[in-house]
Amino acid sequence: MADDVLFELLHTEVVNQIIAPNSTGEQLDNGLSKLEALGFRVGQSMVERITKDTPRFKDELDTMKFVCKEFWMSLYKKQIDNLRTNHQGVFVLQDNRFRLLTQISNNKQFTELAPKYLAFPCGLIRGALANLGVLAVVTAEVSIMPACKFQIQIHRL
Amino acid sequence: MADDVLFELLHTEVVNQIIAPNSTGEQLDNGLSKLEALGFRVGQSMVERITKDTPRFKDELDTMKFVCKEFWMSLYKKQIDNLRTNHQGVFVLQDNRFRLLTQISNNKQFTELAPKYLAFPCGLIRGALANLGVLAVVTAEVSIMPACKFQIQIHRL
Repeated sequence: MADDVLFELLHTEVVNQIIAPNSTGEQLDNGLSKLEALGFRVGQSMVERITKDTPRFKDELDTMKFVCKEFWMSLYKKQIDNLRTNHQGVFVLQDNRFRLLTQISNNKQFTELAPKYLAFPCGLIRGALANLGVLAVVTAEVSIMPACKFQIQIHRL
Repeated sequence: MADDVLFELLHTEVVNQIIAPNSTGEQLDNGLSKLEALGFRVGQSMVERITKDTPRFKDELDTMKFVCKEFWMSLYKKQIDNLRTNHQGVFVLQDNRFRLLTQISNNKQFTELAPKYLAFPCGLIRGALANLGVLAVVTAEVSIMPACKFQIQIHRL
């Protein structure tokens, strides 16, 4: 419990250090990219540790289920609440109570702050998938905090 | 367990982002200061949360015991192994198996890498103490990894 807090506090401080308050335009975009890249590297290392005894996944859906269950559990101590796909390479993962947003707000207020707290988690997913052989673009969308949807668009070579 | 890893991986990536490999001189010093400042702010927030139901400490030694026990436990899931003081404002906290070093090495090899992994933890202690009304300079020293000594020199006004 307390240790969750340590991660969350470090994440918040890193966000504040990388993205100055009231940043806009290019400055904001650069900050978001840096956070995403940080998440990517952490996601890669994380998935390496938790898959070392896991058998090979049979397809993309199987990989995605792993991300929704084991991977999410290891990061946030809960599973993804809802997984949808159009069966054409787009997956939507919904977390009804996303941990890095619960610290900010439990309602619509401050929704405009959400993007800077979602860059790192998007990177985590992209890094995990990359290490599992799936190249993708990951974006996040918030309608009512602290619920959050992560959209994964698989990049086919 | 897995969540400990999330904090550690984020910390490692933050260290690598702030301090480029082979940094020396001023560049290294700037990086270490940034990490220490990051730790300071996290330490401040952390201690605020865990002391909200704690009665006021009666003196510096009492504050230091709190840091060695409750604070250390909330950060690293273990207590400080040894606390010494010269009763003149210097305290030495020894952790025989410091968590942020166990990832690097269990012996003397790579000892030269230790300082960059100790700037953030030194800041954590300094931030916690500052919020408890004790101004101090905190430094760390490693002889055989992963054991580590934190020296706290209290700054009397």
